[in-house]
Amino acid sequence: MFMPVGTQGTVKTLGSEDLEALGFEMVLANTYHLALRPGSDMIERFGGLNELMSWDRPILTDSGGYQVMSLSKHRKISDEGVEFKSHLDGSLLFLTPEKSVLIQRQFGVDITMTLDECPPYPCTRDEAAAAMSRTEAWAKRSSSAAAEGQGVFGIVQGGVHEDLRRISASQITSIPFAGYAIGGVSVGEPLEMQRPVVSFTAPLLPADKPRYLMGVGHPGDILHAVESGIDMFDCVLPTRLARHHSLYTMQGRVNILNQQWAEHHGPVDESSVFPETERYSAAYMRHLFKAGEHLGQRLATLHNLAFYARLMNEIRDAITTETWPALREKYKAYP
Amino acid sequence: MFMPVGTQGTVKTLGSEDLEALGFEMVLANTYHLALRPGSDMIERFGGLNELMSWDRPILTDSGGYQVMSLSKHRKISDEGVEFKSHLDGSLLFLTPEKSVLIQRQFGVDITMTLDECPPYPCTRDEAAAAMSRTEAWAKRSSSAAAEGQGVFGIVQGGVHEDLRRISASQITSIPFAGYAIGGVSVGEPLEMQRPVVSFTAPLLPADKPRYLMGVGHPGDILHAVESGIDMFDCVLPTRLARHHSLYTMQGRVNILNQQWAEHHGPVDESSVFPETERYSAAYMRHLFKAGEHLGQRLATLHNLAFYARLMNEIRDAITTETWPALREKYKAYP
Repeated sequence: MFMPVGTQGTVKTLGSEDLEALGFEMVLANTYHLALRPGSDMIERFGGLNELMSWDRPILTDSGGYQVMSLSKHRKISDEGVEFKSHLDGSLLFLTPEKSVLIQRQFGVDITMTLDECPPYPCTRDEAAAAMSRTEAWAKRSSSAAAEGQGVFGIVQGGVHEDLRRISASQITSIPFAGYAIGGVSVGEPLEMQRPVVSFTAPLLPADKPRYLMGVGHPGDILHAVESGIDMFDCVLPTRLARHHSLYTMQGRVNILNQQWAEHHGPVDESSVFPETERYSAAYMRHLFKAGEHLGQRLATLHNLAFYARLMNEIRDAITTETWPALREKYKAYP
Repeated sequence: MFMPVGTQGTVKTLGSEDLEALGFEMVLANTYHLALRPGSDMIERFGGLNELMSWDRPILTDSGGYQVMSLSKHRKISDEGVEFKSHLDGSLLFLTPEKSVLIQRQFGVDITMTLDECPPYPCTRDEAAAAMSRTEAWAKRSSSAAAEGQGVFGIVQGGVHEDLRRISASQITSIPFAGYAIGGVSVGEPLEMQRPVVSFTAPLLPADKPRYLMGVGHPGDILHAVESGIDMFDCVLPTRLARHHSLYTMQGRVNILNQQWAEHHGPVDESSVFPETERYSAAYMRHLFKAGEHLGQRLATLHNLAFYARLMNEIRDAITTETWPALREKYKAYP
């Protein structure tokens, strides 16, 4: 399964009715951003994040761990937790493993991610090892803080080092979580380093629990990870690329601003199957982007997410019907 | 009937499927903007504006006459026509009455507006009279240039001067157009000057042809104009105000950013009837605007246009069932 990313409680440009029509079963939202605005107390009083978004399917929230890395200039980290200086108004948010679990319980979400320390790439082996150790300590505290049935997932770290990944997997899977994730992947490392990490880490996670690869990825990355045993994905790529006029097709990604689409009557992808986008020509999509019209970003987002939804359906079908090689061939534009 | 404004070939933030769901029968697009981008030759080759927008209901295009006023710093006007310096790249577009009719024929639209000179407010009586005379000359040339069945509408000018409006109405209605419009209204004059112009001009237009009041207006303006005999409207207000977080309700317009909506569970208008917006709380709409998410502008646009669509339905019903006073009372928040 693939979760579109709805950082601030909306998958950018789309409403919940669009995600339902696309067929997605779960979305990802962001603890750090939503805790700052509109605030976890407000969301709890409102009846939870599902109620706020008018979305009655599951939600997974990341813990703020990714922001430990991505907002490294705006935070101080210690064994106790992370102090963020709000990128909105400079106010302070102190996130501990316990606080992150509590906030996500206030959100009322279905899957709670533990606070982890995601080391940047590149970093030294010692830095990766230190982040791994802190992630273990925080995972234990998160598990203790969780309510019965909160659906908490632990996260394996260890950077690009196979031995550290093995240690981290052993540490984290010894804690009884509802599912296990591989974090710290797709943080700037080259593709030839990313895939081996997934290949050797995924089999170390229990087969009878969901295995979640955080923040990955391109269609080829997903096919590779499924072969390694991964069940769950989230990624900003299809939505972010859409907003930058880059569209997925069976022939590879295309830039809709290119002159070749200027008078193209058909949809950008002849195999398009989503009714709200297949009615529009590539020429119209191009015109909308050229003219700076928001509808362009919306149609491109629908298009790219429809592409991902179909990919995931095809993956599920191919796993059960043993037609995997044919599926690999079909998506050969995404090696 | 009310036409949402789709200046660049899209009603901002919405697709054609949204306008269909809202129940609109016609949209307005802009000759000046579309002639610059993507260009009238491109649109003609593509099969017309309906084909480009994937919209199979009628389209009306304004002639560029409004831009004669609104882009007055970027154009030179003479009896022959208007030379625009493109606001996009500085290139020149020379629009004559004949050229405007021809471009709109290339667009393949259902209703073609004639090029007119819309005097600004305030202006001298002499300036208004000169613009009126030029508008008459251009109307004759437009009529001569039109193809059989092109559906061309003439436009009455004359500023805020009743005598000039009478002369202009006499001049324009002596030319056999498919419909007649009142232009040069809602260009900055106070409301107490606008309504009398509509009241005394509308009855001067043939009752057996559509009477179109260009660029108006607030719900109260529309109710007033219908009482004066107007049939057709377009206005950017519901869509532009939506993008500036101002929402129509039966209690008047509200600013969704106000603190009072911060935890409001219901939709912003309890009488909301459009399924894509009534599922969302006012609190969520406010959050989306606070967070700068495009979905906020989209939901607000759907909301405001649904309000206008319902208003027009109610107007049509009240005209035929003689319940007009009750309708006036119902919309008393919009005097």
